[in-house]
Amino acid sequence: MIQPEIIEELRQIVGPQNIQTDATDIYTYGYDASPEYYHEPDVVIAPANKAEIIEVLAICRREQLPIVARGSGSNLSGGTVPIAGGIVMTFTRMNQILEFDQQNLTLTVEPGVITKAINQYTASAGLFFPPDPGSMQISTIGGNISENSGGLRALKYGVTKDYVLGLEVVLANGMVVETGGKLTKDVAGLDLTQLMVGSEGTLGIITKAILKLMPIPEANKTMIATYRSMEAAAQSVSDIIAAKIIPATMEFLDQVTIKAVEDFAHVGLPTEAAAMLLIQQDGHPREIDADIATIEKICRQGDAIDVQVAKDEAEGAKLMAARRTALSALARVKPTTVLEDATVPRSEIAPLVKFINDTAKKYKLYIGTFGHAGDGNMHPTCLTDLRDKDEMKRVHLAFDEIYRKTIELGGTVTGEHGVGLAKLAYLPWKLGASGMWADAAIKAALDPDNILNPQKLYGRSEVAVHD
Amino acid sequence: MIQPEIIEELRQIVGPQNIQTDATDIYTYGYDASPEYYHEPDVVIAPANKAEIIEVLAICRREQLPIVARGSGSNLSGGTVPIAGGIVMTFTRMNQILEFDQQNLTLTVEPGVITKAINQYTASAGLFFPPDPGSMQISTIGGNISENSGGLRALKYGVTKDYVLGLEVVLANGMVVETGGKLTKDVAGLDLTQLMVGSEGTLGIITKAILKLMPIPEANKTMIATYRSMEAAAQSVSDIIAAKIIPATMEFLDQVTIKAVEDFAHVGLPTEAAAMLLIQQDGHPREIDADIATIEKICRQGDAIDVQVAKDEAEGAKLMAARRTALSALARVKPTTVLEDATVPRSEIAPLVKFINDTAKKYKLYIGTFGHAGDGNMHPTCLTDLRDKDEMKRVHLAFDEIYRKTIELGGTVTGEHGVGLAKLAYLPWKLGASGMWADAAIKAALDPDNILNPQKLYGRSEVAVHD
Repeated sequence: MIQPEIIEELRQIVGPQNIQTDATDIYTYGYDASPEYYHEPDVVIAPANKAEIIEVLAICRREQLPIVARGSGSNLSGGTVPIAGGIVMTFTRMNQILEFDQQNLTLTVEPGVITKAINQYTASAGLFFPPDPGSMQISTIGGNISENSGGLRALKYGVTKDYVLGLEVVLANGMVVETGGKLTKDVAGLDLTQLMVGSEGTLGIITKAILKLMPIPEANKTMIATYRSMEAAAQSVSDIIAAKIIPATMEFLDQVTIKAVEDFAHVGLPTEAAAMLLIQQDGHPREIDADIATIEKICRQGDAIDVQVAKDEAEGAKLMAARRTALSALARVKPTTVLEDATVPRSEIAPLVKFINDTAKKYKLYIGTFGHAGDGNMHPTCLTDLRDKDEMKRVHLAFDEIYRKTIELGGTVTGEHGVGLAKLAYLPWKLGASGMWADAAIKAALDPDNILNPQKLYGRSEVAVHD
Repeated sequence: MIQPEIIEELRQIVGPQNIQTDATDIYTYGYDASPEYYHEPDVVIAPANKAEIIEVLAICRREQLPIVARGSGSNLSGGTVPIAGGIVMTFTRMNQILEFDQQNLTLTVEPGVITKAINQYTASAGLFFPPDPGSMQISTIGGNISENSGGLRALKYGVTKDYVLGLEVVLANGMVVETGGKLTKDVAGLDLTQLMVGSEGTLGIITKAILKLMPIPEANKTMIATYRSMEAAAQSVSDIIAAKIIPATMEFLDQVTIKAVEDFAHVGLPTEAAAMLLIQQDGHPREIDADIATIEKICRQGDAIDVQVAKDEAEGAKLMAARRTALSALARVKPTTVLEDATVPRSEIAPLVKFINDTAKKYKLYIGTFGHAGDGNMHPTCLTDLRDKDEMKRVHLAFDEIYRKTIELGGTVTGEHGVGLAKLAYLPWKLGASGMWADAAIKAALDPDNILNPQKLYGRSEVAVHD
C-alpha cells in the first residue's frame, strides 16, 4: 500500500484535479478489455507533460513503486492491469495532435490521441494512417504503439510498427530519448523506435510519436465468398496469394461467427456456409477491377458455394462493418468472451482452424473463429461464463493445446493482442530460453529497478497466469 | 597479438582450409569499401555452421578476443574493419538458400548468400526481394541485414528491415535466439529481429534469415526531368508527393554527377542542367501511365527545362543503369572518393544540397551530390586524394559542417551506410546523450565482454575517428 506522503508528492506534481485515489474512482483502472485479470492500482494520475513524468519516475525509483502507462484500456491481454499495484498513468491530458506535415507525410502526436481521430484529422488532405485495430474508435495511439496493434489491413499495409517513424520516450532513469525522425532511412544507432513499439510499457513511457501517413487509395471494392469447408476457404487464400495478388483485407469467418454476426447485423450472410472469406482490394479503380475479377475466378474454381461482389463502396462498407461486429456479436451468446489471438504462417490456417474445432469438441466448449486470413492471424473466441469454474478450467486446457499446436505450425502465441498476463505462460514456447534471456537482459539494462509495468512480458515465474 | 595456441584451437574448430593467418591473406580483410580506415585482423576464419560459431565465441569470451562478422566487405563506413584486431569471420561456407516458400512468400537463407542471387532465384516464380543497395551484385544478405541497407526503391518499398521476418542469431554468450517467423503479425516479446537489423554485428552473429518477398510489379516506366536549379528539382519532388504519388524510385543528380555519369556511360544526359530527377514508377500498366503523366505535368509546371519519358522498359533500364554508375563515374575523377550519406526529411533536400555546394566552395573541394530524393537520402561525394593531407583535413572540416547542418534540418548522420567508424564522432549529434546511453546499455546487456565488433556504434571516446 502506497504511503500518504507519496500520494501527496504525486498530487503536488500533477495537481489535485489529476490524481485519483478513491476506491470507486480507481476501480475501473484495475481492468483492461480481457475478462480474467484484475488488480487495483493504488493511485491513478494524469500528467500534463514529460517534465511531470520525469518527476513521477524519480519517485517510483526511490520508492520501488510500480508504474503502468495506460491508454483507453481496450487492450485484450491484461497488459495494462497493474498486477503489482502502484501507479496507473493515463494520458487524457496529453492528447494533442502536435504537427501535420503534408510535405513529409507525417503526423506528430501525443500518446493520448484517439486512433480514429488521426484519420478524421488527415482525411481531408487525402491521407490516412493504415493500422486499424478493432478498438480504434476508443483506443489511444500510445496504447497501439505499446501493443504494436494490427487490424484488418495488415496483409497489404503492415501493422503499427510500420508507421512509427520516431518516438520521444522517457526512460525509467528519467532520461528522455528521441528516436528516429521524419526520415525514410535512418541507420544511426540501434533501432530504439522498433524496440519500444510493442514493448507493452515495460521499457519507457512514450510522450510523443511521429507517424507515417499514406495517400488514401482512390477506390475500393469488396466481395464475399462462401464455402462448404474451411479447407476450401483456406485454399482460396493460398491461391490468391499464389496469383500474386495482395488484397488490402482478407478476412475469415467460421460458421459459428457467421451465424452470430448475421443474427446481430442482418446483412444477409449465408448462415449455412461452413466458412466465409470477406475480401477487399483498394487502389486505382481499374487495378481493383482486375484483381477482384481474378479473385472471383479463383474462389469459384476453389469450390466456393457462392461469390458476391458488393455493387458499390457503400455496400462494401456495410459488409466490412458487419465483420467488425464479429466480437460483439459473439459476445452476446454467453456472459464471458475469451478472445484469443493464435497466429500461424498463412499456409497453416486450415490445419489450425480444424484443430481449434476438434479441441472445442473435445473440451465441450463453444468456440467461434474469425480473423485475418491473409496474416494467418486467427481469433478463436470462446463463449463461456467466468463463474463456471469447471468450464473455465476446460477453456484453459483447450487453449493450452491450441497454442501448443500454433507453435508446432510455425506460429506465435500472439499476433496483435500482446503478451500482457494472458500469454505470459505461453511466451517461452515461442521465444525459447534464449529469447527469454535476451528480452530480460534488455529489460534489466533499461529498467534496472523494474518499475515500468513489472511482472509482464519477461515471464516472471511467480505470476500465476490462470486462476 | 593472438597466441599460436589459440590459432591452433580455431584451426581445430573450422578446419585447416578455413583459417587464414598469413599477412598477404589477411591484408584485404583490414579494409572495407571506405577509403580511410584500415586495421589488420589477427586471423580470418570461415565457419561451416552455428555449432562452430558457438565454439569460436567461447574462445573469444575466454580470451577477451574481438570478433568481427564480415560479408563481402562492400560496406561504406568502416563497419567491418577490425579496428581492435582479433578474428574476422566470413560466411563463404554459409551461403545456401535453405527454403523457398511460395505459399508464405518467404525465402530462408544463410548469411553468406549474395543479395543479387536472391532475386535471380525467385524471379522465375514472379517474386522479388525489394531492397537493392548499390553493392547488391557483390554484397551478402548478412551484411545487408547488419547494415540495414537501403537502395533506390526505398520510397515505395522500404529498406532491408522491412523485409526481414525472422532471424537465427548466435549471441555473444553462445545462446542461439530464433526471432520472428513466417508471420505477418507477431507481438510475442521484444522485437529482437528489428534490434538485430542494423546493429552492425555488435549484438550477435546472424546465422539464418527469413526474408519477405513481394510479387514483381507487372510493368515499369522511367522518366527524367532536368532543371536550371536544384531548388526547382527539389520542389518537384515535394509536388509529386503532395499529389499523392509514391514513385518506386525518385533519384536526384546534381550537375557534377550528371557530367561525370554522361562522360562515363554516354546515355545522352543533359550536361548543361543544374539538376536532374530520374523517376521510375511500377505496378499495373494503366496505373503507371496515369502516374507518369501526372508527374510529367508537375515537372513541366515546376520549371523543368526538359522532361523525357523512356519509350520502353529497356530504355528505362538503361537510364537506371546509368544512375547506378554514379559512384564509379565520380570515382574516376580523382584518386580518392569519400562517399557520404547525409539524410534529411525530403522537404529539406534543396537547403541541404545548397549548403553542401556552399561548403564545397568554402573549403575548395570537389563534391558531387546524388541520391534518393524521395527518401531525402543524399550522397555528397567528395573527390580527393588521401595522400594530400591538407585537402583531407579540409574534407573532414567540410563534412563536420555538412552533418551539423543535416542534424539542424531534422536529419540523420547516416541513412543507409551505417555508423561504422566513419560516423562514430557524429553519432551523439543524432542520438544525444540519452540515446547513446540506451544503446550502450543494451550492448552491455547482450555482450558484456564486448567481444562483438568492439569500438563501433557505441561511440567509445578512445577511438580516433580521423587521421
